[in-house]
Amino acid sequence: MTYISVPKDQPGIRGLMAFRPETAKPLNDLVEALLTSNEGLTAGERELIATYVSSKNDCYYCQTIHGAVAAAHLAGDEPLVQSVKLDFEHAAISDKLKSLLVIAEKVQLGGKHVLPSDVERAKQLGATDLEIHDTVLIAAAFCMFNRYVDGLGTTQPRDEDMYRQRGVRIAREGYVEVSKSYLPIPIAR
Amino acid sequence: MTYISVPKDQPGIRGLMAFRPETAKPLNDLVEALLTSNEGLTAGERELIATYVSSKNDCYYCQTIHGAVAAAHLAGDEPLVQSVKLDFEHAAISDKLKSLLVIAEKVQLGGKHVLPSDVERAKQLGATDLEIHDTVLIAAAFCMFNRYVDGLGTTQPRDEDMYRQRGVRIAREGYVEVSKSYLPIPIAR
Repeated sequence: MTYISVPKDQPGIRGLMAFRPETAKPLNDLVEALLTSNEGLTAGERELIATYVSSKNDCYYCQTIHGAVAAAHLAGDEPLVQSVKLDFEHAAISDKLKSLLVIAEKVQLGGKHVLPSDVERAKQLGATDLEIHDTVLIAAAFCMFNRYVDGLGTTQPRDEDMYRQRGVRIAREGYVEVSKSYLPIPIAR
Repeated sequence: MTYISVPKDQPGIRGLMAFRPETAKPLNDLVEALLTSNEGLTAGERELIATYVSSKNDCYYCQTIHGAVAAAHLAGDEPLVQSVKLDFEHAAISDKLKSLLVIAEKVQLGGKHVLPSDVERAKQLGATDLEIHDTVLIAAAFCMFNRYVDGLGTTQPRDEDMYRQRGVRIAREGYVEVSKSYLPIPIAR
């Protein structure tokens, strides 16, 4: 039962965004810029980082929807998404992405946990400044989204097919476009 | 020494924003919507929440600049800002704001720490749904900003006057306007 009055048919962050369209817009613009790009990191890799951080923060809604978007980008490979969540060092991903997930894991604990040697290792494995930047900001952003969704006690249905279908749609259309289906037209308060 | 190549004359988040204007825009839009509003919570109260969470996350840059913006909104009352950071239960702020800072403190630890009883107490002290929403999102957003600024090893000058002057300017002009002084015009990459 969400702690504030949000539309009952909108689970997770969608109810919060419908409640407060003024903040929903920059939040959707942020995930659009961070997660749908294929420059440097692919959209699938970006979603894997978001999913991994959300699983470390134990946010069911975020790890399930972003896991579904990741799988949609990765030819439906749900077992790969699971393997990244459970033990990324042995998952079938590049060494570069593993080194970036180490950084993301430290960001989840707190920014000061990231050491120069972590960044140096990622650079040696081919990570660019842009990829390191985006990894840190994706991990940091999901420390926000996870707290937002759980801190307001949102409803988070246990219906994997709902997330799967929505994940396919987000991977195809992007966050800003999909948000139009549940955001009211902003009004001056 | 920032872990990635950012403009040397831009400390803290400003260097990161200059490096990546595509994500700087939604980040500035987010703080503009969350921190400059006076609907429900005043801008000063919003900045106090941001400052408090940034101090719990031990981010020097964020707690100092937002503490300066808070003071600028609060008639220059820097001792009040310090007292909120050190022991808000005994600070000269309303009981409602104290109950919201309890919620913010729990969000900083993780979203699931916020209990229905914390929200109920804030409501009994007069907090509206909008104020509770904004408190949780401000606290969550600073769990992002603090990790972003510290996770990329940004330079954070120990020059309180620099923060003080900038705080006055942000309180007067807002985040989006001030960001124009250090953001390049976005270019297609």
